[in-house]
Amino acid sequence: VGRGSTLLVTRASREAFDAVRGVVPAATYHAEAAVIAYRQQDVTPGKGTIVVASAGTSDQPVAEEAAVTAELMGNTVERIYDVGVAGLHRLLGARHRLAAARAIVVVAGMEGALPSVVAGLVSVPVIAVPTSVGYGASFGGIAALLGMLNSCASGVSVVNIDNGFGAANIASLINHL
Amino acid sequence: VGRGSTLLVTRASREAFDAVRGVVPAATYHAEAAVIAYRQQDVTPGKGTIVVASAGTSDQPVAEEAAVTAELMGNTVERIYDVGVAGLHRLLGARHRLAAARAIVVVAGMEGALPSVVAGLVSVPVIAVPTSVGYGASFGGIAALLGMLNSCASGVSVVNIDNGFGAANIASLINHL
Amino acid sequence: VGRGSTLLVTRASREAFDAVRGVVPAATYHAEAAVIAYRQQDVTPGKGTIVVASAGTSDQPVAEEAAVTAELMGNTVERIYDVGVAGLHRLLGARHRLAAARAIVVVAGMEGALPSVVAGLVSVPVIAVPTSVGYGASFGGIAALLGMLNSCASGVSVVNIDNGFGAANIASLINHL
Amino acid sequence: VGRGSTLLVTRASREAFDAVRGVVPAATYHAEAAVIAYRQQDVTPGKGTIVVASAGTSDQPVAEEAAVTAELMGNTVERIYDVGVAGLHRLLGARHRLAAARAIVVVAGMEGALPSVVAGLVSVPVIAVPTSVGYGASFGGIAALLGMLNSCASGVSVVNIDNGFGAANIASLINHL
Amino acid sequence: VGRGSTLLVTRASREAFDAVRGVVPAATYHAEAAVIAYRQQDVTPGKGTIVVASAGTSDQPVAEEAAVTAELMGNTVERIYDVGVAGLHRLLGARHRLAAARAIVVVAGMEGALPSVVAGLVSVPVIAVPTSVGYGASFGGIAALLGMLNSCASGVSVVNIDNGFGAANIASLINHL
Amino acid sequence: VGRGSTLLVTRASREAFDAVRGVVPAATYHAEAAVIAYRQQDVTPGKGTIVVASAGTSDQPVAEEAAVTAELMGNTVERIYDVGVAGLHRLLGARHRLAAARAIVVVAGMEGALPSVVAGLVSVPVIAVPTSVGYGASFGGIAALLGMLNSCASGVSVVNIDNGFGAANIASLINHL
Amino acid sequence: VGRGSTLLVTRASREAFDAVRGVVPAATYHAEAAVIAYRQQDVTPGKGTIVVASAGTSDQPVAEEAAVTAELMGNTVERIYDVGVAGLHRLLGARHRLAAARAIVVVAGMEGALPSVVAGLVSVPVIAVPTSVGYGASFGGIAALLGMLNSCASGVSVVNIDNGFGAANIASLINHL
Amino acid sequence: VGRGSTLLVTRASREAFDAVRGVVPAATYHAEAAVIAYRQQDVTPGKGTIVVASAGTSDQPVAEEAAVTAELMGNTVERIYDVGVAGLHRLLGARHRLAAARAIVVVAGMEGALPSVVAGLVSVPVIAVPTSVGYGASFGGIAALLGMLNSCASGVSVVNIDNGFGAANIASLINHL
Repeated sequence: VGRGSTLLVTRASREAFDAVRGVVPAATYHAEAAVIAYRQQDVTPGKGTIVVASAGTSDQPVAEEAAVTAELMGNTVERIYDVGVAGLHRLLGARHRLAAARAIVVVAGMEGALPSVVAGLVSVPVIAVPTSVGYGASFGGIAALLGMLNSCASGVSVVNIDNGFGAANIASLINHL
Repeated sequence: VGRGSTLLVTRASREAFDAVRGVVPAATYHAEAAVIAYRQQDVTPGKGTIVVASAGTSDQPVAEEAAVTAELMGNTVERIYDVGVAGLHRLLGARHRLAAARAIVVVAGMEGALPSVVAGLVSVPVIAVPTSVGYGASFGGIAALLGMLNSCASGVSVVNIDNGFGAANIASLINHL
Repeated sequence: VGRGSTLLVTRASREAFDAVRGVVPAATYHAEAAVIAYRQQDVTPGKGTIVVASAGTSDQPVAEEAAVTAELMGNTVERIYDVGVAGLHRLLGARHRLAAARAIVVVAGMEGALPSVVAGLVSVPVIAVPTSVGYGASFGGIAALLGMLNSCASGVSVVNIDNGFGAANIASLINHL
Repeated sequence: VGRGSTLLVTRASREAFDAVRGVVPAATYHAEAAVIAYRQQDVTPGKGTIVVASAGTSDQPVAEEAAVTAELMGNTVERIYDVGVAGLHRLLGARHRLAAARAIVVVAGMEGALPSVVAGLVSVPVIAVPTSVGYGASFGGIAALLGMLNSCASGVSVVNIDNGFGAANIASLINHL
Repeated sequence: VGRGSTLLVTRASREAFDAVRGVVPAATYHAEAAVIAYRQQDVTPGKGTIVVASAGTSDQPVAEEAAVTAELMGNTVERIYDVGVAGLHRLLGARHRLAAARAIVVVAGMEGALPSVVAGLVSVPVIAVPTSVGYGASFGGIAALLGMLNSCASGVSVVNIDNGFGAANIASLINHL
Repeated sequence: VGRGSTLLVTRASREAFDAVRGVVPAATYHAEAAVIAYRQQDVTPGKGTIVVASAGTSDQPVAEEAAVTAELMGNTVERIYDVGVAGLHRLLGARHRLAAARAIVVVAGMEGALPSVVAGLVSVPVIAVPTSVGYGASFGGIAALLGMLNSCASGVSVVNIDNGFGAANIASLINHL
Repeated sequence: VGRGSTLLVTRASREAFDAVRGVVPAATYHAEAAVIAYRQQDVTPGKGTIVVASAGTSDQPVAEEAAVTAELMGNTVERIYDVGVAGLHRLLGARHRLAAARAIVVVAGMEGALPSVVAGLVSVPVIAVPTSVGYGASFGGIAALLGMLNSCASGVSVVNIDNGFGAANIASLINHL
Repeated sequence: VGRGSTLLVTRASREAFDAVRGVVPAATYHAEAAVIAYRQQDVTPGKGTIVVASAGTSDQPVAEEAAVTAELMGNTVERIYDVGVAGLHRLLGARHRLAAARAIVVVAGMEGALPSVVAGLVSVPVIAVPTSVGYGASFGGIAALLGMLNSCASGVSVVNIDNGFGAANIASLINHL
């Protein structure tokens, strides 16, 4: 998606990148995020830090889409990956970094419980991204989506399944206020 | 819900208010919002204005729940009601007030299209609240919920159906950053 | 689908066209619409204009299926594409052309909000076509379908997901009254 | 719903009518349709006839809502009730009256098959209204709604469950072209 | 599926048939039905005729699975194909053949209306088979399945989507009583 | 439902019966089945026996609706109640009576497993009736309905949830062949 | 439910208790659990402790149903209530009591995240009970049910929504091995 | 999934095994279970036997995943395959082996009735695994899942569709108590 003088293409294959590079030689390809990005100098920097947290390794591509998008929009991004709720100690160890953020993007599939736990730990706006990771009764991310919409913690809002770009966009709006 | 020295009860009947008033005489009842509130002096004021916009008159109780909640949390709230997408001129007339907000809570039932249109007009974080208003294939708010999750505009995140309180909470977190 | 002396095949590949051309040499292939058409001289012309409007570029193939179908049935068709609700100015600019139509086919995926906005602007029968464009909670067009069925504006009826042919058929029936 | 100098309230109880009559003494109450109506002299008459057909006796209230609405909007309405697909002879007997209409509103619950059969008999725009009549796997009208969306006949578009008002509105738009 | 000394394999490819023929040289392959069959002499013949009726050409493979299965089980089968409800005259022309059957298997996709119409015409047990034919809101046969379960006519029972084998089995049980 | 000179009203309250008795004094009320019945002499008797089997005590009203309906239509009915799959010995004890039937109506809620087990025991047409008994993930009978549609045994067809009347009707058609 | 010489009635009103007490004077009523119980001396005691944990106060009636049921079956039960994931410190404080159990019943509504977190903390079989607590997109407990079925932690199995009795039964079977 | 010094990879292709064998030469591949396993000497043996039962041949891969997983975790496993409810005699013949288990994993697709029947026969904890086997209204295992959640027998808990690993894990926890 081109945004003025910034270029951002999500869900892009390496082949797409090769084509884009012919037109925009300075564009870069973020393989895990599947994002083609080209950032110009004049992006207004965000005021604080955006944390992108993810539950499992299979959630990481969506988390990377969010992280790369947020960086492209001028934000400092801190990645806190692999902090799923079945291993609380790792998450608890990241508590101070979470509390220091101006906005947190939380990416999780399966039962989608991580945003509730994060929002219970800190008083920072949490944008939850369900992922289509899982099988059977995960229904391509619906279980995680429903879990996040029904969060028992305050401060959680939700975007569409796998929509790392959208979550980063909201976090960036908040971080630029 | 009691939050420290602030009292906030959502979906409260007048009977519940009568009971609460026996204990907290200074509590007030907001009938349309069905909210019992008691605000202490020491709430930190928000930095800017939160707009609460709603599509139809039947969405107004949820909008009021959001507005009263946000006010109780120390925010200045501007209500922009009855600006559904079937009558664009009213919405377009409110454009400048929308653009001046630090966060916008958009409440809509039926097809839930209002958040997309609002987010297309201004660059402010939009928290969308689907309402259970409607009948037939609205499925108690699911149609609106899905519409909001699939918004074609950037900057929209979503909370649970009828969750005016939750949306106000997020808007207040943003407005206090 | 052959209809008397007119030939219309929807969702046709170029390979199918090659086979058809062997039998009906005058048949033409509309690549974006994926339609094979062969129109005879004696089609009764419609009385006015049918507008086919679409929200995003990915909705265009279904819109083209509708437009080519309507043309084959003897109607003058005006295409108004890429007028999604997140960019209202483009849609508002097309207001007079919309109002001049005898029937409007509106094609949209994602939240499916465009038919409501169009039907709020003009008093013309709107036939809404949800598209399977989108991902995650769009559920292959169900979100758009539900949005259209719950339209808050008067004058909107709906056909099946991606059914550009069916919508054009209804618009043509109306335009020939 | 008040529409300029015309008054139309759907799903209205007799109590609501008593209240309205205090303000608009000339208003009338259509008990089966549950509609309060007040029609002024200056409504533009429709060009032809609108047929309202219904499948079973339990679909009749929605059919009446459609018929009364269409009449209020200045249309001549012909009612063809109780012509469900399990008794084809009654429907076939009404064939000529169906073919003479400029628009047909077809109201049916359960499997919702009537619109397909009607649209197969005549070349007139059919607006299908699923009703919430039924039990078990009818899911409050969803079975009928899906049946209508998947109609194998050309010329059928669909409105929300029980939305007799909306169907009449579209039929009236068509009949006034 | 092998059933004693009879062999019946449904949903079989030609490759599977080649493999089977190596073991059972007398087996035959029914290409449209995708059935491999081998019928022995000692099958008890059914008492009357089983009609297999289908709505559209795309329903025919499932209809053929039913017809071939019923024949293999010793029944005389009459095929009445392409009698969808959008073209009633063809169906009405087959009325006497339908009435003469001891059981009728009705195969239909899309809105699944054919079983209701057939059961309204004759007093014979109807076993309805929804097919996965269709797109969009047909949901792989669910719309047809729901339509059949909600049939407004008496005498209709339903089997799983595309289960021509199961329907033939029931019809054969009835025809052998 | 009046059927010629026979009267059958399902889901009837005692109040309804009192009203009917004023008009048809010889009508009888079957309280558990909630059926009002009036049977004339000239009903053609069925050829054999119809078994109505049910899983649990809460399925019995629907089973009674089926049994009373079948009796009214001239059939000899054998009731085999309370033979759910969690207590196989009771069901196995009824094996011979099941095998002697010309048609078996099997009524079950919850997981709806009884029809599969019955159809595995005997070679008689089984008409399965899911009931809306249950809670939580039974979804008002959908779990039982799906279980029956997916039966692993041959010879099972299904009617709508709680539709004892419909199942009896089919069984009676079969028993009168 | 009577089980041999033990009496257990779930979802029982006080009126039901009054009736039962006439027959079994020694029966007791557990008001929050809505359970009538009568325990005889000869119940075999379980080997260890069963923990019943619950997330929020509104989940407590189902938790009590489980706890009372387990006690009646001869188990020592430890209640750990109000330990929802939005307030981790309370749950972490109960860690040792959780680890000492032979089986843990975890009761939670909304997003149903508690079983995953508990199963991540200790290596004890967890039986998860979703509750119908919540509103909007909780769908009467479905969101919690899906969350539990998709648990990212090992050792979690699930019973039906609100089925405290069933969970206690399984825990008791395990505790008596 | 690596668990300390034990290696277990589920849903593994032979290609994955070839890669793993390069690193862990002693790993073994279980083709039907699609599991790569490497078991060390020091696994604590379970106290009794875990039975893995399955309904049909197509359920066997998931059953094997469960069986191999349980063996790797130190348990003695008895396989009782192909004992679906449509052929009760085979299941009844295995009654004593079922009763001797400390935990039973029951794997079934289609209507998912086997766990109810097994739990009705013996008093052993049953962990039910729905499989995605089936077509049409089986919805990829949802019908079986719902059937198991609504089991009319005591002692049944459920894991996600096709989750043989998870069921074995729970059975092993129980068998090691």
